Amino acid sequence: MRQTDAASLTAELIQCPSVTPEEGGALTLLERYLSEAGFDCTRVDRGAVSNLFARWGDKGHARSFGFNGHTDVVPVGDAAAWSVDPFGAEIKDGIMYGRGATDMKSGVAAFAAAAIDFVSNTPPDGAIILTITGDEEGDAIDGTTALLDYMEGAQEQMSVCLVGEPTCPNEMGEMMKIGRRGSMTAYFTFTGVQGHSAYPHRAKNPVPVMARLMDQLASHELDTGTEHFDASTLAVVTMDTGNPATNVIPAECRATLNIRFNDAHSGASLTAWMQGKAETIAAQTGVSVDMKVTISGESFITPPGALSDLVGRAVEAETGRRPELSTSGGTSDARFVQHHCPVVEFGLVGKTMHQVDEQVPVDQIQQLKAIYSRILSDYFS
Amino acid sequence: MRQTDAASLTAELIQCPSVTPEEGGALTLLERYLSEAGFDCTRVDRGAVSNLFARWGDKGHARSFGFNGHTDVVPVGDAAAWSVDPFGAEIKDGIMYGRGATDMKSGVAAFAAAAIDFVSNTPPDGAIILTITGDEEGDAIDGTTALLDYMEGAQEQMSVCLVGEPTCPNEMGEMMKIGRRGSMTAYFTFTGVQGHSAYPHRAKNPVPVMARLMDQLASHELDTGTEHFDASTLAVVTMDTGNPATNVIPAECRATLNIRFNDAHSGASLTAWMQGKAETIAAQTGVSVDMKVTISGESFITPPGALSDLVGRAVEAETGRRPELSTSGGTSDARFVQHHCPVVEFGLVGKTMHQVDEQVPVDQIQQLKAIYSRILSDYFS
Ligand SMILES: [Zn+2]
Ligand SMILES: [Zn+2]
Repeated sequence: MRQTDAASLTAELIQCPSVTPEEGGALTLLERYLSEAGFDCTRVDRGAVSNLFARWGDKGHARSFGFNGHTDVVPVGDAAAWSVDPFGAEIKDGIMYGRGATDMKSGVAAFAAAAIDFVSNTPPDGAIILTITGDEEGDAIDGTTALLDYMEGAQEQMSVCLVGEPTCPNEMGEMMKIGRRGSMTAYFTFTGVQGHSAYPHRAKNPVPVMARLMDQLASHELDTGTEHFDASTLAVVTMDTGNPATNVIPAECRATLNIRFNDAHSGASLTAWMQGKAETIAAQTGVSVDMKVTISGESFITPPGALSDLVGRAVEAETGRRPELSTSGGTSDARFVQHHCPVVEFGLVGKTMHQVDEQVPVDQIQQLKAIYSRILSDYFS
Repeated sequence: MRQTDAASLTAELIQCPSVTPEEGGALTLLERYLSEAGFDCTRVDRGAVSNLFARWGDKGHARSFGFNGHTDVVPVGDAAAWSVDPFGAEIKDGIMYGRGATDMKSGVAAFAAAAIDFVSNTPPDGAIILTITGDEEGDAIDGTTALLDYMEGAQEQMSVCLVGEPTCPNEMGEMMKIGRRGSMTAYFTFTGVQGHSAYPHRAKNPVPVMARLMDQLASHELDTGTEHFDASTLAVVTMDTGNPATNVIPAECRATLNIRFNDAHSGASLTAWMQGKAETIAAQTGVSVDMKVTISGESFITPPGALSDLVGRAVEAETGRRPELSTSGGTSDARFVQHHCPVVEFGLVGKTMHQVDEQVPVDQIQQLKAIYSRILSDYFS
């Protein structure tokens, strides 16, 4: 019986200084372990980034289980504030410390170890595909997207995919993600006519016009949530004029807002809604309006079903908790994978991700590996 | 018959480079002319500023006619943009050029020349008081206020006062001022709780709260004007956050607004109104509100009557136009004089004040002197 130690593998990965876009030896290490266990490995490099594609079993097999994760990490930040070496993987009282300990070298180690042991001990009739990127924390342009582009060209296909990002807010097993809200940012510039504060009728003041539009947009209830999603949210994150003269009405005012939206909306529908409001207020006031929009991602969902049941049952068997099916939180690479196949996310507790003294209990890594192992054996049974 | 040339005196004053707070020789020149004509002159210096008090006739006389004006000027600005020497007082085609040509060395020269000739040719039973400051264009802290403080201490009293600032928008004689709106500025700082854009319920965003308050204040009709005043106006001149991160809800947002208000309001009543609105919105949202107010001046009026009739009749006799009684425009030193005695303002066309190639038609200076002379003879007749 092969028994790959997921905690040791996590420590080895933490010791690779793989701050985006540096590969730092992490993918090379994984490639070595996986190749040795019979995985067919391909490095997919694009731009400044390196990624790893690994498949065990036949290409194009109808039962191909996928894992997705990243080995890149965010910078250390204030190194002096750490109580340990951020790349030391030191263990104290059963807790392992280091950048990437939760986000997400432990997750990658857990699914790699589970996959290696599974194909070694009970080779399935099917395939296991690992897509591991070095560009999740950066622009995410040359990461999972590059892997999926490669797979399309090489006619590689996952039947389903599990992303190993941390998903549990506080307790191991309490939450998995079956989708994410979309995210978009809108940038407004209002232009009026400068003038003297004493003669406002000779000027066209863009500032109160911006105040009115931002109040209208921020106080509008986009929705009250949908079957699988929380309510969409809109946050005005900045309004700026930069006018130092209290006796001068300025010509320009800018504002930016960010929307996290569910499946009741799309980037296009929200753009049209804001454009309409802005044009109405422009027509009423004579202030000219410019709006630019960037859509980071549309909302998506893998509806509850076979895949979420598979994962949920395994989590419950190992932790005693049936995970909530959530669509909360920011974006992840699942937004790319969802175009390829059904995808859900499950991982450990994310509390210390991106923080000083990022840390993970060693037995939580082992538990995560046990969950991933059970998912594989249930999937192929 | 003494005939002091107001145009020559204007030219001599322009040639004194009296940019605030520099006296530049202007007050010394006037003191020489006035002393020689029998005026009792006192230099009232305070801070970096010099001012001139001059009285002809008995102190405390029941009929004491006052003039007020300033010899300081705003800076030249872009000297290369001038087509003449800004301190040259050059005359071309009947137009005199120079900094202060309209604002307001011509006005000071016109009333000084009128007063000198009047007391020399037809000495009245009464007094004429000239208060001429070197700090109107600056902070106005050590100017007319210092002269009025001096007068209070010395038991000097004007019965009425005419401020010689430019008051006519386009044509000589079309407007006089019998009061001014008040002016105040309010500075708001809203403080909430910073957070991530994806989780707005965990933050308290001050930006949309500021947008709502500014919209409420800016869209409120303060009044529709009063008997002698235009409607009060409120201009939001800046809103600022300075948040570069679209995924971060900021903790703070600032805004500034300026109010020009008529006699339906006071600085205190408007402060209370804004404070009430701000506290209501703070209570509704949990965002904490800080408001600071500076009141540059309360509104004031010298109701139409003997003084405005006196000035209006003289203007009509010399120009054929009965001037409109206005309370429009920014602040002037009349806001200080109004605490001392009834005050109105009349002067020439102010179009080029504070501009490059500031200029005045020579015959408009002579016309202004004729108006001031007629006012004096009518007052004392
Ligand atoms: Zn991550
Ligand atoms: Zn002036």
